[in-house]
Amino acid sequence: MLTRIDHIGIACFDLDKTVEFYRATYGFEVFHTEVNEEQGVREAMLKINETSDGGASYLQLLEPTREDSAVGKWLAKNGEGVHHIAFGTADVDGDSEAIRGKGVRVLYDEPRTGSMGSRITFLHPKDCHGVLTELVTAAPAGSADH
Amino acid sequence: MLTRIDHIGIACFDLDKTVEFYRATYGFEVFHTEVNEEQGVREAMLKINETSDGGASYLQLLEPTREDSAVGKWLAKNGEGVHHIAFGTADVDGDSEAIRGKGVRVLYDEPRTGSMGSRITFLHPKDCHGVLTELVTAAPAGSADH
Repeated sequence: MLTRIDHIGIACFDLDKTVEFYRATYGFEVFHTEVNEEQGVREAMLKINETSDGGASYLQLLEPTREDSAVGKWLAKNGEGVHHIAFGTADVDGDSEAIRGKGVRVLYDEPRTGSMGSRITFLHPKDCHGVLTELVTAAPAGSADH
Repeated sequence: MLTRIDHIGIACFDLDKTVEFYRATYGFEVFHTEVNEEQGVREAMLKINETSDGGASYLQLLEPTREDSAVGKWLAKNGEGVHHIAFGTADVDGDSEAIRGKGVRVLYDEPRTGSMGSRITFLHPKDCHGVLTELVTAAPAGSADH
């Protein structure tokens, strides 16, 4: 069951400049940064609020580490902007299988590693009214390395 | 001060079909619907979670009521997808003036009426790394008509 907006993924050309925009304009601070080589991104998570399911909602700022990554190709085509949205669930495996069973294409056979040790998968935007949609199960409390 | 992700605004061609997609796929239910003639949209709000500032986070599904509305023109150019993101604040007037003072273009001289009796304004996406960004102050509790 999806119980929160976990994050909004925003693609940018220059992570440092974009982080500085969000800090200077809104006062949002960086909660976590990492490089995810599998996804081909360098990213910063800005925590905006906590949520009623015990989780939190973030902005995830994404700079591609290589042009042939999914985010790199998307940026070349679209320019900067919202790349995907993510819903939080306690059970990304069960939920993604249930959603696959409804005829929505799930992009990974098995969930992969996302931000802060989470487990993630994506749903095909053409099956989701144009929205690239991620499902995410956060790492158990205390296990995330940030 | 911006204290929550208030909503993600998603533009769609057919509101009823898109509402049904979110219900059938994820179990999200409609919390509120309205027509905003000033914005030229028919919309449904799906409440996803409550937030630590006493508010909530929604998906806002938007169907244009006329082709020359902002959302209608955006849809014709981009197709369905994420149209804007919105941050919640207790003081949209003060925050938008402070942000204007930092050189970010604010699209309205004064906040206008948004979903559920809220007061809203928008920031120019070209000043926000490609993201059309809304600021929203919810109506006082009990005053929203839904």
